[in-house]
Amino acid sequence: MYLNVLTQCIPAPLFEGMWRHPEDQSALGYRSLDYWVNMAQQLESACIDALFFADIHGVYDVYQDSPAPSIQHSVQVPAIDPVLVIPAAAAATRNLGFAVSYSTSYHAPYQCARLFSSLDHLTGGRIGWNIVTSDLRLAVGTGLAEQCPHDERYDRADEYLDLVVRLWEDSWEAGAVRHDAASDTFADPARVHRVDHAGRWYRMSAPHQCEPSPQRTPVLYQAGSSDRGLTFAARHAELVFVALSGFRQGRERVEDLRDRARRQGRDPEGLRILQGMCLILGEDAAQARARAEEYERFSSRGGLTAKWCGWTGLDLASYPAEAPLSDLPAGQMRSVTDFLRQAGAGRELTVGDLREHVATPRRPNPHARLMLFGTPEQVADRMEMWLERTKIDGFNLMPCPPTLGTRDLCELLVPELQRRGLARKSYDTAERTLRERYFGSGVTRYVRAAENNGGNRHGG
Amino acid sequence: MYLNVLTQCIPAPLFEGMWRHPEDQSALGYRSLDYWVNMAQQLESACIDALFFADIHGVYDVYQDSPAPSIQHSVQVPAIDPVLVIPAAAAATRNLGFAVSYSTSYHAPYQCARLFSSLDHLTGGRIGWNIVTSDLRLAVGTGLAEQCPHDERYDRADEYLDLVVRLWEDSWEAGAVRHDAASDTFADPARVHRVDHAGRWYRMSAPHQCEPSPQRTPVLYQAGSSDRGLTFAARHAELVFVALSGFRQGRERVEDLRDRARRQGRDPEGLRILQGMCLILGEDAAQARARAEEYERFSSRGGLTAKWCGWTGLDLASYPAEAPLSDLPAGQMRSVTDFLRQAGAGRELTVGDLREHVATPRRPNPHARLMLFGTPEQVADRMEMWLERTKIDGFNLMPCPPTLGTRDLCELLVPELQRRGLARKSYDTAERTLRERYFGSGVTRYVRAAENNGGNRHGG
Repeated sequence: MYLNVLTQCIPAPLFEGMWRHPEDQSALGYRSLDYWVNMAQQLESACIDALFFADIHGVYDVYQDSPAPSIQHSVQVPAIDPVLVIPAAAAATRNLGFAVSYSTSYHAPYQCARLFSSLDHLTGGRIGWNIVTSDLRLAVGTGLAEQCPHDERYDRADEYLDLVVRLWEDSWEAGAVRHDAASDTFADPARVHRVDHAGRWYRMSAPHQCEPSPQRTPVLYQAGSSDRGLTFAARHAELVFVALSGFRQGRERVEDLRDRARRQGRDPEGLRILQGMCLILGEDAAQARARAEEYERFSSRGGLTAKWCGWTGLDLASYPAEAPLSDLPAGQMRSVTDFLRQAGAGRELTVGDLREHVATPRRPNPHARLMLFGTPEQVADRMEMWLERTKIDGFNLMPCPPTLGTRDLCELLVPELQRRGLARKSYDTAERTLRERYFGSGVTRYVRAAENNGGNRHGG
Repeated sequence: MYLNVLTQCIPAPLFEGMWRHPEDQSALGYRSLDYWVNMAQQLESACIDALFFADIHGVYDVYQDSPAPSIQHSVQVPAIDPVLVIPAAAAATRNLGFAVSYSTSYHAPYQCARLFSSLDHLTGGRIGWNIVTSDLRLAVGTGLAEQCPHDERYDRADEYLDLVVRLWEDSWEAGAVRHDAASDTFADPARVHRVDHAGRWYRMSAPHQCEPSPQRTPVLYQAGSSDRGLTFAARHAELVFVALSGFRQGRERVEDLRDRARRQGRDPEGLRILQGMCLILGEDAAQARARAEEYERFSSRGGLTAKWCGWTGLDLASYPAEAPLSDLPAGQMRSVTDFLRQAGAGRELTVGDLREHVATPRRPNPHARLMLFGTPEQVADRMEMWLERTKIDGFNLMPCPPTLGTRDLCELLVPELQRRGLARKSYDTAERTLRERYFGSGVTRYVRAAENNGGNRHGG
């Protein structure tokens, strides 16, 4: 079973309002190297596979047509650049992996390739890239990019991926670096190639700026959930984050993902599928209940609303409370199906009902969707059930509250998983890179889908 | 006197071919966190002000119309991203400052502002930004940017600077961050403002993504030498790197820079001016001579030529050796004045003569231009002379060979400067930020030139 921990360099990552928990340290810690170094060492002591940093560019400003609610309730703002936290955390650890969201919409491929080669060198092969094709509503306001339609974004990301992988895999041959002082040859130029490319979105004619790093291509993560996103993931990704809403639908989704990989000419077992889940844990039932109460008490109604509106693009403040839900744009009804399913029968639902639903944190219970709740035994039982019934490979955990939750994950949950033989008790030192950690010692190189191997599909 | 050390995350920074020195560790070390952490700790133990990282995007490919000579002789390639080295070095030090070149041509202003705010938070206020407006010959090949004329580049950089400084200084008011759990107020949105801008090159309408960091605006470094570059430096920079070729011309240049700052409505003493100099040091005269011999022996003729051609844009391989120098494009003659001055009289000079000049390392001597050479006493004498005669504020030193040279700088030269009362023996702990280190305790904030203070010059 693979265990990642998901975070973000913001106050109280993932849990709107939890910076108010009196024992949480993330409100100051998120911008301190000590905080992140300590967290990385804690996770390494529990033999976690990787610490994964989400990211955002810009400030949500849909709710009330203003950034004010996000700023007041700290909805992913303020936010510092997670890429900068990784080198310090890597210098203080030896085995823990790191992954980070990095958008194909904000950075040129050449820059992206250099960034991850640099991180791979500096971490000694412990880096993963969560490929994000950003929703650009935010980015337009920040002058970072032009908005483009969803599916076209993925076409563009396909070209981007092919290009950065060529820089990593094809530019510097194995053995190109010589360090031969006598002939004044640092590297053999006959073995270092320009990547020539003139495609629909990108142009390039240059060798990669970095010599080969331990993994060359970072471990590729993806989290697409649309049909186009799943195809993208099946084509490129080695590790996929999912948010399965239940066992049966989950099992189907997992099989579908492996099928898609097979259709791309890839080994379906070359995909690791991790289920994202909140984790609210207590040493015993009483402490678990206390944590659940804190979660409900400190969650921010305004923050939850601002985030929901930012995600869906729908300003719930712009409709009267008594308006029927059918007044909302049709495209947004998909976002409220969860609500409709729960609240359904009896009377016509209103925007006011939806607002209340959005602003209310889900009550933690052992069967809640996308949540693991309870004692270490209860949570481990539930994790086993997820593994068996859906055939996922592991979890991407979001501990709540961030600081105490991370400690309890390491000190309470992992030991229980270790007792059951579900989690490792030590790192296998033969697995020197993050890719080897996921796929076994010796599996050092990224394998491209068959159709991507041509090299010059886009010209050159 | 202020002392910076200049480096780059490449094998043998600044000295083509010196990776061949048998005791140099930079050829492997440049891509290792341990190497940089050790160097930072060494510099901190000598109370150096800041470690400054140059950078490059792309691979020089002018000489022989190919990247091959740069790759063979390691002319600023391979190169990793220096921004990533700083957090690890900062986590291992408490007082040393860091600065890094970052180009206004490759990154959107919003991204730049967030990067340096993040670095300023993570380093506790120890970051400087060397503002670079890149020569884009390289970047075009890498798909990073379009080339644009030199002076227009600076106009564009002026707009860029005004914009990022507004994000740092004007978006989040002092006291905006409240951490008030009772009212669910992380920050007071009435005190956080969008930066609205619609200028010639950039558009933006968003609040800054980061809360105020210790320095807000990083210490601004600049190294322009053209007339337009000097005006840019005088308008924005707090610390200017110069390459003065002698005492008299140097004194005039220093006065001119302070005059330009005055004409921008700035305090001319608000500029620190550091002279860039190679440093070749020996414990005694015999060791200095040995170091000089190594420098000549290990310098790479091909590497020096590839770098010169990359800088000037002139491919010396494309002319016959016997061609008269007057065959070169007129615009390039400025690059060869140094050569002409030395080699001048007697016969007509040829491209072959120039090639030989370019490929030959300057012989170290105590009076060499842009070089400090000799024993600690000789070098300290020379540094004193520079300070007195030109009124510079300090030095940006490039030790050669990189690894041993840095050690000797810390262990031989700094103690000699300390004996003379020219270098500090301990950091002043009242100076908590890099800006305070350069301008005194309490000087925490960047002061904009008067004409930049309007705020909404470009719209709003």
